Amino acid sequence: MRIASREIQETLLQVLIKYGFKQDKAGILSKIFTESSMDGVYSHGLNRFPRFIKNVKDGIVKIDAEPEKISSFGNIQQWNGNLGPGILNALSCMTGAMKIARSAGIGCIALSNTNHWMRGGTYGWQAADKRYIGICWTNTEPNMVAWGSKSSVLGNNPLIIAIPRKEGNIVLDTAMSQYSYGKMESYSHEGKNLEYIGGLDSKGSLSKDPQEILNNESALPIGFWKGSGLSLVLDLLAAILAKGDPTHRIGLRNSEYGMSQVFISINMEWLDHDFTSKIIHDVLQNLHSSETAIKGDKIYYPGERTLITRIENAKLGIPVNKQIWNTILNL
Amino acid sequence: MRIASREIQETLLQVLIKYGFKQDKAGILSKIFTESSMDGVYSHGLNRFPRFIKNVKDGIVKIDAEPEKISSFGNIQQWNGNLGPGILNALSCMTGAMKIARSAGIGCIALSNTNHWMRGGTYGWQAADKRYIGICWTNTEPNMVAWGSKSSVLGNNPLIIAIPRKEGNIVLDTAMSQYSYGKMESYSHEGKNLEYIGGLDSKGSLSKDPQEILNNESALPIGFWKGSGLSLVLDLLAAILAKGDPTHRIGLRNSEYGMSQVFISINMEWLDHDFTSKIIHDVLQNLHSSETAIKGDKIYYPGERTLITRIENAKLGIPVNKQIWNTILNL
Repeated sequence: MRIASREIQETLLQVLIKYGFKQDKAGILSKIFTESSMDGVYSHGLNRFPRFIKNVKDGIVKIDAEPEKISSFGNIQQWNGNLGPGILNALSCMTGAMKIARSAGIGCIALSNTNHWMRGGTYGWQAADKRYIGICWTNTEPNMVAWGSKSSVLGNNPLIIAIPRKEGNIVLDTAMSQYSYGKMESYSHEGKNLEYIGGLDSKGSLSKDPQEILNNESALPIGFWKGSGLSLVLDLLAAILAKGDPTHRIGLRNSEYGMSQVFISINMEWLDHDFTSKIIHDVLQNLHSSETAIKGDKIYYPGERTLITRIENAKLGIPVNKQIWNTILNL
Repeated sequence: MRIASREIQETLLQVLIKYGFKQDKAGILSKIFTESSMDGVYSHGLNRFPRFIKNVKDGIVKIDAEPEKISSFGNIQQWNGNLGPGILNALSCMTGAMKIARSAGIGCIALSNTNHWMRGGTYGWQAADKRYIGICWTNTEPNMVAWGSKSSVLGNNPLIIAIPRKEGNIVLDTAMSQYSYGKMESYSHEGKNLEYIGGLDSKGSLSKDPQEILNNESALPIGFWKGSGLSLVLDLLAAILAKGDPTHRIGLRNSEYGMSQVFISINMEWLDHDFTSKIIHDVLQNLHSSETAIKGDKIYYPGERTLITRIENAKLGIPVNKQIWNTILNL
């Protein structure tokens, strides 16, 4: 079934207010959850909302907590998220990074002690919509094996890189694991194997069986040894700069909270706009014109399909899982 | 055969001076080429030196060119490398980024119109040795397929992330391709297939045959669709920020030159040193203590093996390919 975004947003708003959120915060949260589904990221939009409310009920998400600056040096700031809603903390930090970049060219805010930011791409689109380059990443609980290890000692630490473009921003939103857990769940539900090795089975062997990988929470890094290293340094940078917890400490808790994140923003206003537009145009044209392995196929740039889905869902309504919608209506 | 680093460095120095380099530049270049081999990155150390000299002879590398600042805004600067030696340009930009970060916390220099920087890790170690975080990347000629395409429209765009650590820096130095061309050449020489899919064969099918991939210059991105997107945004960021050429324009030349690069440095001095040391220690300990898939195996952090090789090569001499050494002696 499809439901108009306005109805979804209004429904979420009422639930949030019922659970104690003030009007302004409930407004932002309901908007972001709805937008994620609107953009096709259902796993971190509507589908995740019931779990978010559960975290509120369990006291993991502190509904009135505000992030606070704990330290700064030049154009870097350290903030403590005080376990407030991850979305609000992250939006606030990307806004802060852009504010620094407005005069300093580049700004960086590192955030500790925050909750799940849901869809990482949100903060990339946020920056790019304001004509800033946005780069951000988060650490996570341990959910990915290090290459060569038998168990998950790394996080899949999503990395977002966003570049503003009038005709549609370029927004890369990629976790360090080859497949997301949401994707592997879909494969498992359909009784299909993954196309490529995606994790370890119960014996610790490389596997394409999504259910085995899900059972062991043992996703593989992109590029095996390469993504393994990339995940480790992203975790270290986040924890060091934010004075927050790294992945293995988050894993000591009975639920995933207290993450560390980094938000970097770069000013584009001082650049030669004609040159920039032409470069972006040419690079995307070159990509689009490359011969595809499958005839009739198309190569997309990061964020291109997001925009297509957004337009479609705005027109037709957002696809909603009936069971999840009923759960939300009964919250 | 193994040769003492001092002898290698002195030999390279004399060759560089013979080809017109001034003493100070020849000194730095011979040191960096030697250090790359010392650290086990033979492909971009000694083994690459004859090709570097060829580029000098062909006028691709301008031996007396100096990089110049063309624009700046706050703590970002744009430099033109004027096709000087890539190593010197890159060292100079990372030094500049650190200089900005010294007072501003974070500094960024984007460099256009430069030559191959050889081993990217050099600039990570450079920053980390001075107790700065160093992040840098370069674009390259097209040498990697976009996921879904049949030909190489992307560069493998090496990315370096370095974190200072007293007992040995953490330095990730990773191209966006699953295997480097040097690695695939080694496999081919030994008549072995790659362990994992690494590129496309002449029919455009996924392949483990290193020679087919080499023939088609069609390396695959790490994580397939994921590394594909990552490579694209790194290329765009480098070209936009440096006001330089993106990968597909570099590919229009008959040789690889005129690359765009980004150097970001972050100050660590203002951070809580005890906290930082403890976090790094704990994260690495957690990694090292994870159960390995193969008994007796060890999980290394990025840069760990570099240090082991460095110590070994300092003691025993640097392993040198006899043929390459003779070529160098005859330059």
